[in-house]
Amino acid sequence: MKLAVDGMGGDNAPQAIIEGVYKALEVSPDLEILLYGSKEKMQPFLNDLNRITIIDCQEVIEGTDEPVRAVRRKKDASMVKMAEAVANGEADACISAGNTGALMAAGLFIVHRIEGIDRPALSTTLPTLDGSGFDMLDLGSNADAKPENLVQYAIMGSIYAKQVRGIQKPTVGLLNIGTEDKKGNDLSKHAFTLLKDAPVNFIGNVEARELLNHAADVVVTDGFTGNMVLKTIEGTAGAVFKMMKEAFMASTKSKVAALLMKNNLKALKNKMDYTEYGGAALFGLKAPVIKAHGSSNGRAFASAIRQARKMVEHNVIPTIDQTITNAKQNDSEQ
Amino acid sequence: MKLAVDGMGGDNAPQAIIEGVYKALEVSPDLEILLYGSKEKMQPFLNDLNRITIIDCQEVIEGTDEPVRAVRRKKDASMVKMAEAVANGEADACISAGNTGALMAAGLFIVHRIEGIDRPALSTTLPTLDGSGFDMLDLGSNADAKPENLVQYAIMGSIYAKQVRGIQKPTVGLLNIGTEDKKGNDLSKHAFTLLKDAPVNFIGNVEARELLNHAADVVVTDGFTGNMVLKTIEGTAGAVFKMMKEAFMASTKSKVAALLMKNNLKALKNKMDYTEYGGAALFGLKAPVIKAHGSSNGRAFASAIRQARKMVEHNVIPTIDQTITNAKQNDSEQ
Repeated sequence: MKLAVDGMGGDNAPQAIIEGVYKALEVSPDLEILLYGSKEKMQPFLNDLNRITIIDCQEVIEGTDEPVRAVRRKKDASMVKMAEAVANGEADACISAGNTGALMAAGLFIVHRIEGIDRPALSTTLPTLDGSGFDMLDLGSNADAKPENLVQYAIMGSIYAKQVRGIQKPTVGLLNIGTEDKKGNDLSKHAFTLLKDAPVNFIGNVEARELLNHAADVVVTDGFTGNMVLKTIEGTAGAVFKMMKEAFMASTKSKVAALLMKNNLKALKNKMDYTEYGGAALFGLKAPVIKAHGSSNGRAFASAIRQARKMVEHNVIPTIDQTITNAKQNDSEQ
Repeated sequence: MKLAVDGMGGDNAPQAIIEGVYKALEVSPDLEILLYGSKEKMQPFLNDLNRITIIDCQEVIEGTDEPVRAVRRKKDASMVKMAEAVANGEADACISAGNTGALMAAGLFIVHRIEGIDRPALSTTLPTLDGSGFDMLDLGSNADAKPENLVQYAIMGSIYAKQVRGIQKPTVGLLNIGTEDKKGNDLSKHAFTLLKDAPVNFIGNVEARELLNHAADVVVTDGFTGNMVLKTIEGTAGAVFKMMKEAFMASTKSKVAALLMKNNLKALKNKMDYTEYGGAALFGLKAPVIKAHGSSNGRAFASAIRQARKMVEHNVIPTIDQTITNAKQNDSEQ
């Protein structure tokens, strides 16, 4: 399997990216990496070039670049070249820790949508208290979604949860402001009626309060709400951890407590660390496009590569393609 | 000042409600309470009836009641009678820990909107790490908001932050999925342009991740998003505290740590306890209508009464009325 990697994306590029590549190669003997980026900048971190092909690129898309313009104008950017490799069939999937908007644009304009998919969706697996996690989508690919989009998100999320995460009949919940059937805004009310007839294991509305208690295996919502909820989870968990840290530093007594708790606290932080599950995946494109967290270290980037590998290995894209085609046929026959 | 209280609303009614009433009377010598509810059920918790008038009501709106129907049909419910007292001018404001939807319906149909206000908004003061807190609205009064509604929310929130919380020139942020001016969905983009010209101290978009870092004094959003974010904050904080608790109970060593940290952890929990700030207020009605948390104990209910008292004392309603009238005049003169 060949995966294309953007060597220049993210806060810790290229070092963390290359560390991630080596970690991934180590555990996957069948893996080959096409590494896109400045040869000069990557050189110091490269040693063994077995199963790595370097493609020297002169440009980089920065985090501050306007996404669509950057993808259109920076023809020799590592991210653009990486996406082209996937579009040309030279690579099976691609991974970048760079500018999220630009990666979404590259996915849309270069890798292209699966036929029948109206809108791609950004998705990630978030942690739950019971350790099983849930997939939420859309996390911000489309701020204004139509009810029909949410049905496609549910189908794509279910296929990912089944094929990659091994959940036999993943439950799908609609994120809403109440669990009753008729709750919500116009979008969620309409989506609810469509989801009842969709080819997924729909269990109804789920509330934001219950997300971390594993309310469903797959949770669908529009990109505005999904992004908002994701950032609220991050912000709140971060704030509580910060307060805990301050509480542990408050006095000599509490500092002793911190020492006693050291291992427990580390385990707790790992439990909340969703980079373990990989990055965010763009669903609905003709090949897996994975966004690793911008602050990825080598371990997190290796998880993102592993995620791309699993999506290819378990035929996520062909299954989405087939399921969407079948769903459209059923609709037109009715 | 006379305040009307629903003696039967909430999980711990009537006991917690009556405890709250006594606590409030103790600190406010000018306060009189009109207490609505079943005389028989409230009797065991009442002793001194100085400055308390009991109005015996035969019905109760339950948490499971369909809000609008309950308010229309249960004519003798404590919540309905309480709202009528405000509408008749017998009381200056009202407080209930009962069914939120029913209280919103009672506010709308019995207390009525201020002229010029298109939609009332539900608001509460949430804690921030720096201890100052912020007001967020709408928390779910209207799931589908128009951009113009958000401008009125900003005006009402600013007046509350200034008059009740004493912030001279409260900053107003628009909750959005990015801080750049043109980010968001159709609603937030349109609201952004309107807020720039509104008579408030608008500082632009604020992200959900920064809310607990005191991104703004007042944060406006539609009711669907506001409710979602509020519940995500509650759910995430709850989940992290639960994990911390488990970590503290994991071993003998960690149990010792828990003992050493006891006071610090208690302080931390208090910091996150937003019942300290009072309840949720319905803005845009002709009198203050306060929703105390359903699980309120006596202390939390007393905070909600104090909040109602402050809103009356600091002329929140007349100021909203005047400001909305002026804003409409300015609009029509342009």
